[in-house]
Amino acid sequence: MNINLPKLQHTSSGNFFLMAGPCAIEGEDMALEIAEELVRISDRLQIPLIFKGSYRKANRSRKDSFTGIGDEKALRILAKVSETFGIPTVTDIHESHEAAMAAEFVDVLQIPAFLCRQTDLLIAAAETGKVVNIKKGQFLSGESMKFAVEKVKESGNNNVILTDRGNSFGYSDLVVDFRNIPVMRENQVPVVMDVTHSLQQPNQSSGVTGGRPALIETIAKAAIAVGADGLFIETHPDPKSARSDGANMLQLDQLEGLMRRLIRIREAVRFEA
Amino acid sequence: MNINLPKLQHTSSGNFFLMAGPCAIEGEDMALEIAEELVRISDRLQIPLIFKGSYRKANRSRKDSFTGIGDEKALRILAKVSETFGIPTVTDIHESHEAAMAAEFVDVLQIPAFLCRQTDLLIAAAETGKVVNIKKGQFLSGESMKFAVEKVKESGNNNVILTDRGNSFGYSDLVVDFRNIPVMRENQVPVVMDVTHSLQQPNQSSGVTGGRPALIETIAKAAIAVGADGLFIETHPDPKSARSDGANMLQLDQLEGLMRRLIRIREAVRFEA
Amino acid sequence: MNINLPKLQHTSSGNFFLMAGPCAIEGEDMALEIAEELVRISDRLQIPLIFKGSYRKANRSRKDSFTGIGDEKALRILAKVSETFGIPTVTDIHESHEAAMAAEFVDVLQIPAFLCRQTDLLIAAAETGKVVNIKKGQFLSGESMKFAVEKVKESGNNNVILTDRGNSFGYSDLVVDFRNIPVMRENQVPVVMDVTHSLQQPNQSSGVTGGRPALIETIAKAAIAVGADGLFIETHPDPKSARSDGANMLQLDQLEGLMRRLIRIREAVRFEA
Amino acid sequence: MNINLPKLQHTSSGNFFLMAGPCAIEGEDMALEIAEELVRISDRLQIPLIFKGSYRKANRSRKDSFTGIGDEKALRILAKVSETFGIPTVTDIHESHEAAMAAEFVDVLQIPAFLCRQTDLLIAAAETGKVVNIKKGQFLSGESMKFAVEKVKESGNNNVILTDRGNSFGYSDLVVDFRNIPVMRENQVPVVMDVTHSLQQPNQSSGVTGGRPALIETIAKAAIAVGADGLFIETHPDPKSARSDGANMLQLDQLEGLMRRLIRIREAVRFEA
Repeated sequence: MNINLPKLQHTSSGNFFLMAGPCAIEGEDMALEIAEELVRISDRLQIPLIFKGSYRKANRSRKDSFTGIGDEKALRILAKVSETFGIPTVTDIHESHEAAMAAEFVDVLQIPAFLCRQTDLLIAAAETGKVVNIKKGQFLSGESMKFAVEKVKESGNNNVILTDRGNSFGYSDLVVDFRNIPVMRENQVPVVMDVTHSLQQPNQSSGVTGGRPALIETIAKAAIAVGADGLFIETHPDPKSARSDGANMLQLDQLEGLMRRLIRIREAVRFEA
Repeated sequence: MNINLPKLQHTSSGNFFLMAGPCAIEGEDMALEIAEELVRISDRLQIPLIFKGSYRKANRSRKDSFTGIGDEKALRILAKVSETFGIPTVTDIHESHEAAMAAEFVDVLQIPAFLCRQTDLLIAAAETGKVVNIKKGQFLSGESMKFAVEKVKESGNNNVILTDRGNSFGYSDLVVDFRNIPVMRENQVPVVMDVTHSLQQPNQSSGVTGGRPALIETIAKAAIAVGADGLFIETHPDPKSARSDGANMLQLDQLEGLMRRLIRIREAVRFEA
Repeated sequence: MNINLPKLQHTSSGNFFLMAGPCAIEGEDMALEIAEELVRISDRLQIPLIFKGSYRKANRSRKDSFTGIGDEKALRILAKVSETFGIPTVTDIHESHEAAMAAEFVDVLQIPAFLCRQTDLLIAAAETGKVVNIKKGQFLSGESMKFAVEKVKESGNNNVILTDRGNSFGYSDLVVDFRNIPVMRENQVPVVMDVTHSLQQPNQSSGVTGGRPALIETIAKAAIAVGADGLFIETHPDPKSARSDGANMLQLDQLEGLMRRLIRIREAVRFEA
Repeated sequence: MNINLPKLQHTSSGNFFLMAGPCAIEGEDMALEIAEELVRISDRLQIPLIFKGSYRKANRSRKDSFTGIGDEKALRILAKVSETFGIPTVTDIHESHEAAMAAEFVDVLQIPAFLCRQTDLLIAAAETGKVVNIKKGQFLSGESMKFAVEKVKESGNNNVILTDRGNSFGYSDLVVDFRNIPVMRENQVPVVMDVTHSLQQPNQSSGVTGGRPALIETIAKAAIAVGADGLFIETHPDPKSARSDGANMLQLDQLEGLMRRLIRIREAVRFEA
């Protein structure tokens, strides 16, 4: 990968990289438990790993949705995961003033899809010097993301990742346009498919989002086949008990099998003549 | 209207209200000139008027797009318009820290469509006590906006307006779903149709948005016919010379004729048995 | 209207015209009963009326859906309605060989939305000399309908109507793009809004289509406000008992009130300066 | 494949099958020339091949578009291709009366996407006993195609193929929803991705469809990775000179390389644990 992320391991394997973790940081024990299993898979399969956890959920539909356990508490847990396992971590920020604070604890700052055109936020993230992972808005073409990349690069930071998490398709569904993977790769940045969020099915009357986790493998396989550099997968030992986005997460004990099948596709497309 | 906006005039006329102005505040003379003409039409036709101007443009596609003349300078111009003509003003904010500052100068704080689910921003706007105008996200149903309304009301502020500015329809077009007007009115808040932004046609490769201003009258008539309480129209004496969103603005000298035709529809639907 | 339909009454009233009836012809008594009430409203309010009934339903999702009572039997009922009340009738055809047969019994041949690009079907309909009502495909812009109009006109028949019945919006919803009304009117043909089908909500797993009849008035008002020449409304004395499309029909006893409210809007837009 | 198509060769190779050919049959020499090259690739790579050619184009936007060289003449060319190379052929039909005629000349009858709900057409195709390839409507979910399959099977014909050619995405674009591949495979029928039509970009004002042929490989790779049983690719020695759909076709000399890369992905997903 042409980004500067020194903690990232197994980069010489030629594999795609994996951003994975629970949706929100719910507590230290849970975070370390999930990270341990992810690291075990990462080491066994030589998959570069970035641990993902949100320290707060700022854009829930409903005010009574779970929003987090406290900003600094959650960020310290991310830092502990990083120290314990020697792996980079990523978290999402929502306003520009969060960038500097979050940057003290994590290696990658993620810009949520709804916010990918907020210039102040992109610049604040860029100015921390951390890697900036920008999610493509559900209403934007892959082509238009070049402007978001430029905003970061013109702020002096060349460490950009672009992530696709699907397009709005009616009010209660998303569809992934895989044309966007090669189109976004033209920016010379790594492109990630956010598999689990792409399968969301917003239930706009209840405010609680559903999902189709049975299709995680479909989205992931197509992404690797068309050249995605990385995958973003939310995972949990018991998705039904997760406090945020449980409907879309992959059950943790299914991850290794999925990764093995994806590596076979990666190898098929990697050594093309 | 069941919102608290004392400067609003002509409220007993039974007319829809009008939020209008240039897209961005480009200078004092221009702002006062446009406001003067709007006030003249408002007084002549008894249309309650809120003057609109953005003090900065935070979510342009391109970093080199016009973003403003300086925050405080633009906000002071809005305050001057309000004092000069005795009318309320509205501007949009993008991060929560802007709420208190903007609230010192304007009467209505507007939440951009992309940001309508940002809880912190909604709460910060709510806590100023100002009227909060929330634009419906281009990816959200009218039904789902009840959660945004609740976030403001649960913060102790009942002065909420909802505004529709169309839905994403492919990558380069918007479509207005007029079902959302009656659906959003079920929240017991005034509902506004943002006519000019609903006609945007994002050109995602150039980063410069186009539009179909010839259809302004179509969108406005349908909105009034289905019960919209207000209209949002960006207008400029010479749209081609405007520094932001020129492709979608109504030429100022066409506004009065349009208003007269819309009032006829308003009267037709207002006195229904 | 600039089409040749001699049986059409009340054409000098300046009102929009109405295409209405049950979805499918279920029997003679029912058809005459509904027609009688429609004629009563038409006469009282001076609304030009075309009675609508499908003689067969060729494109149901499921093979076990109701498809009709027999082609000729249903067509004879349509002819009887026409004779009894002296009004024109319309039915839909699905393959070119049906055109001549149906033309013996009805005054307007309707081309279903899915079939609006089938050249053979359009030409066969055109060659009967009857009025051809082409529904806009749910996947087509209003602009593209000029090619369908041309196919009919180049076959020597200038009696064309265009009807909008909404656009696909995700898999389970439709949205009406009211920009298409003025755009299609540029073809110098009457443009109709199909109110009831525009509110369909396909349930693609059960194969039974739902609807939102509470919004019939919203769609109809917007259509008249933006200049629609006619409305298409399926109606039934008891929609729940109808054998086809019951979820979307207007209850017959609500039609007159709706028409009165729509006429007020029509008058508001008709006499514009 | 669980369909009865005796002429299909190389079925024991485990490869996906290929439906390929020019869009429309323009002449015998051209057809034989393209077929010869396709057969050469098919034999070399052990890819089961079905030769595709339309004998008429019934649903062009514009009446002045190329529609064919004559029905029987084109069908005889398809039969000659079949005899010459010993391979099955496929053509599309548009009205039920065409089914029996076309069935005399070809092995697979294809139902166009716009027509996939036309019960009469599906039954007429089914009753020929030929394999029926149903294209998924651009407005339908994969799930809903079970009703089309049932219509054919209930007519006593179990030889059904389902083909995806993308979904409408705004007025001028299509997006492929790859979730539909595994969903349609649940019907126990082979599922095909129509790669070239999925990349169409309808230009609705000119009536001439554009395309993005550079993305053919992206769509094809994703399809094979998620389990598609076959691919449909229109190809031509010189797409720019083709009389129909030239903007979307693959240049014939690029086919073999593409097939080789796809076979690698097929092997990666075929031998999964």
